[in-house]
Amino acid sequence: MSVCLIMILLFAGSATAQQDSILIRKLYDETLQQDVMDVNLRYLTSKIGARISGSAQARQAVQWAATVLSGYHPDSLYLQPVTVPHWVRGEKELAGLVSNGASASLDICALGGSVGTNGILTAQVIEVRSWQELAAMDDKLVNGKIVFFNRPMDAREPEPFKAYLAAVDQRAMGAIAAAKKGAVGALIRSLTLSKDDYPHTGAMSYEDGVTKIPAAALSTNSADHLSAALQSDPSLKVMLQMNCKQLPDEQSYNVIAELKGTRYPQEIVSVGAHLDSWDLGEGASDDGTGIVQAMEVLRLFTTTGIKPDRTLRIILYMNEEAGAHGGKKYASVVKAGKEVHVAAIESDAGGFIPRGFRMDASPAVIARVKKWAQLLVPYNAGDIRLQQRGVDLVPMQGIAKALLSLDCDDSRLFYIHHTVLDTYEKVNPREVSMGAGAMAAMVLLFCKYGL
Amino acid sequence: MSVCLIMILLFAGSATAQQDSILIRKLYDETLQQDVMDVNLRYLTSKIGARISGSAQARQAVQWAATVLSGYHPDSLYLQPVTVPHWVRGEKELAGLVSNGASASLDICALGGSVGTNGILTAQVIEVRSWQELAAMDDKLVNGKIVFFNRPMDAREPEPFKAYLAAVDQRAMGAIAAAKKGAVGALIRSLTLSKDDYPHTGAMSYEDGVTKIPAAALSTNSADHLSAALQSDPSLKVMLQMNCKQLPDEQSYNVIAELKGTRYPQEIVSVGAHLDSWDLGEGASDDGTGIVQAMEVLRLFTTTGIKPDRTLRIILYMNEEAGAHGGKKYASVVKAGKEVHVAAIESDAGGFIPRGFRMDASPAVIARVKKWAQLLVPYNAGDIRLQQRGVDLVPMQGIAKALLSLDCDDSRLFYIHHTVLDTYEKVNPREVSMGAGAMAAMVLLFCKYGL
Repeated sequence: MSVCLIMILLFAGSATAQQDSILIRKLYDETLQQDVMDVNLRYLTSKIGARISGSAQARQAVQWAATVLSGYHPDSLYLQPVTVPHWVRGEKELAGLVSNGASASLDICALGGSVGTNGILTAQVIEVRSWQELAAMDDKLVNGKIVFFNRPMDAREPEPFKAYLAAVDQRAMGAIAAAKKGAVGALIRSLTLSKDDYPHTGAMSYEDGVTKIPAAALSTNSADHLSAALQSDPSLKVMLQMNCKQLPDEQSYNVIAELKGTRYPQEIVSVGAHLDSWDLGEGASDDGTGIVQAMEVLRLFTTTGIKPDRTLRIILYMNEEAGAHGGKKYASVVKAGKEVHVAAIESDAGGFIPRGFRMDASPAVIARVKKWAQLLVPYNAGDIRLQQRGVDLVPMQGIAKALLSLDCDDSRLFYIHHTVLDTYEKVNPREVSMGAGAMAAMVLLFCKYGL
Repeated sequence: MSVCLIMILLFAGSATAQQDSILIRKLYDETLQQDVMDVNLRYLTSKIGARISGSAQARQAVQWAATVLSGYHPDSLYLQPVTVPHWVRGEKELAGLVSNGASASLDICALGGSVGTNGILTAQVIEVRSWQELAAMDDKLVNGKIVFFNRPMDAREPEPFKAYLAAVDQRAMGAIAAAKKGAVGALIRSLTLSKDDYPHTGAMSYEDGVTKIPAAALSTNSADHLSAALQSDPSLKVMLQMNCKQLPDEQSYNVIAELKGTRYPQEIVSVGAHLDSWDLGEGASDDGTGIVQAMEVLRLFTTTGIKPDRTLRIILYMNEEAGAHGGKKYASVVKAGKEVHVAAIESDAGGFIPRGFRMDASPAVIARVKKWAQLLVPYNAGDIRLQQRGVDLVPMQGIAKALLSLDCDDSRLFYIHHTVLDTYEKVNPREVSMGAGAMAAMVLLFCKYGL
């Protein structure tokens, strides 16, 4: 290749990058200067609040989101039907331990999907810190007792999310493993690095053919208290009252809005978050921030007048927390329609300061995206890591060419995750704006260059 | 060089890096698993609270810090005398505007070092958004009025600290520039990206030979209100009552603790933060977090038994906020004693999640530190940028070979900076631990390798 040609190519490359960087600057400028997301998040958290799938609040959230999105002038807007489970907590749970005639209360909350106790359940407790420990126990030792899963998140792990992943199996599978040994209940140490009185709920599961036993999370303080009490009195008893139950499935919806691509309208770049939340707190960081960010991406394009070459699709998924039914439904529709899905992006990491994105794609695609991400370095969001973390994107594996989750610093996430503490006040509007800017920029690049 | 020698060198390099990484892991493990800093910060913020230099609380902070440090078994511990200014706010300020017979209150606070109003000051207001605008004004227009500096921090700037630097000149120099034009007071729009009712204090200055006029910060909401009111009534009047004053200088101290280097005790690596704070809030993020982090570095070394090759010196500076008298005093002592000061590190960026360090040094030194910083990448703290930001380190320019400030994400900082909102509740213990780990690791490397 002649030196001259190389120089032309370098120049062309640099001019394009410069053009991209100007458009990205425009998107960031708009979101950093407006408080639209803050107003939206305040409404979602204070006027609607927690919105577990199947609830009246989840229905309100669907209507509200559609109304807000329609104000951002999409080319189309529709509700995609999703059948969702409808679990209710009922009256607040009660729990206490009785040891040597003395009693003390414990802070618990039922795990999402758990059966109730049908009155008061009283039983002895057996503490375990590993699956091996439980497996090695004689069934007779476990039979009729409550299994107390007390393996903490590892504070030494530099990334809290990894510590969460290494401990969440207890919440997900504890009730099944305990029931297989004849246990009558399961208590799970809350998944947090904090020592406090707030129990953290979250999804649990049952297995066909295995007795469904009640499962609840204990606050870390209560877990420490129970563990210490068991040391001095292994035959102490715990009483549980949980009024939760599963109601019939409900009809609900993913909320979807589109801006048609000007050059390749049949190719889709999606950006999303999940509309539902757990029933405690206000669902602010999980995933209210993601919702207002995903909606903001549409607003940023229509307000700045930047027209995407490929179709930009905003997807607000219903029911991420209890089975990702919305994500599964969306993927099945894309697959059935044989749509060309370039990339699917999700924000579900708490709305904290973004570092960049985590992604799943072919090595060649990852290399391309890493190059694009240089344009996000001035915004401290140029870091591309492997293994995307958006639960709603998992069903899109093999369907979209690239899956990306916004990668945020998660130091603060597990202090509030799935608790009454997940409220508007914990959110920093600046961090949310920086995340929306990063998502809009990545959408812009995918829409322009495709894959 | 023979292939064999290269291989040995590579091996040596890699083995050394591995050894370093094990020690760094040990330091992080200790700080991530203990809540010592959290306990210390809670004490400092709730039992002592705000501690402006010269105050009784600043004296208590000196005593408390010395006591805590002595518990971490330093080889030496001493108080370094520093003479500091003693400014007091007096009774809370009052401010209001009167326009067309209607009045409204304004949220203000005196800037640190300002003179009071000596009763109620009533005057017309002239708003300016740039120095040029003020300079171009006829003195007659300004004479007898209050100059209202209303240039906001630029929300579009990706790094809030840069937006702060671009606006802080109004607070620092506004009273001088206004007085030179004959103004009787200065009001400064608070330095924050937030729209709220909290005025942000901070240092201001006077110039010899120029009349000292009262200067106060207006909350951003009050600034917007005043600006709008001036549009409809340019001759409106503002009333100010500020009871602040300067008292005689006080004797105070830098608190210094040392762990003697085992191989090169005469070479110093320092890590510090500032003990004083503004008088509003609790001085939690500015700079309580830095204080507990600096003290934690000593604890991490003595608890893990890692012995530094060079001398580790913890310096808790007095009076960063109003003239950096502690930093200046420390530098003058180092200079007079001709001490070999390898590196000086400070944490004064809010105690939020660290990205790495900002530094000033020769290009060769920066290149070395960037190489070391690879060991901090697993902790998301490997980013080395130019221009350190520790005010207490500025007097060490040309004395220490490297100046480094812990570089934290500052999205949240200017929401609370120098206000009543700078409290313990805003701090995330995990973020503080990650910062202490990064500082201890950097100290370890400087102590081992020198410069």
